[in-house]
Amino acid sequence: MILDRLGEQWTVMTLAELATGPRRYRELERALQGISQRMMTLTLRRLERDGHVLRHVEPTIPPSVTYELSPLGQSFASQVAALVAWSRQSKTQIEAARTAFDAKPRQT
Amino acid sequence: MILDRLGEQWTVMTLAELATGPRRYRELERALQGISQRMMTLTLRRLERDGHVLRHVEPTIPPSVTYELSPLGQSFASQVAALVAWSRQSKTQIEAARTAFDAKPRQT
Repeated sequence: MILDRLGEQWTVMTLAELATGPRRYRELERALQGISQRMMTLTLRRLERDGHVLRHVEPTIPPSVTYELSPLGQSFASQVAALVAWSRQSKTQIEAARTAFDAKPRQT
Repeated sequence: MILDRLGEQWTVMTLAELATGPRRYRELERALQGISQRMMTLTLRRLERDGHVLRHVEPTIPPSVTYELSPLGQSFASQVAALVAWSRQSKTQIEAARTAFDAKPRQT
């Protein structure tokens, strides 16, 4: 479950990064500090499979791979950005609610 | 991971149901067809802990328990509703992308 959440976190960050423009694999890797190669490949592949990300391969040696958001991916990225903004805004309130809940003896 | 997704599905449905007004435990159970008692308790508890749902206990015999969205929960429910609407709208496009992706031989 925690791994799944982490995976979603990387998806959110990848979408946010690509929302500002196309990126090469190396550029994305640098932008997403701390992501493992496996998680990055997985995240990009899932986004590509869902039609959110387009993958361009230039037949250079070595091949140069670029990723960019499709129109569908752009609209998804906006949705996700709104949810992230809401979460940030509500973080303090949610944390206060949790502290109060955990401190309260359980009534039935 | 699938259980986690299922859990999120119930959270979304609970928020949608409570967005239309307060509900007693039995009413919620009826509205969320197929939910197990364990999953419903878990879902409501998590939402209550996060300050999204308020739980009222009337000291009748047996006690009557009512759930309603807090203002924070209402704003979260709107966010989630927007994401659900987007998902419904994009479902066909995403499924088409997946079919195309799975049919395509992998290029490097």
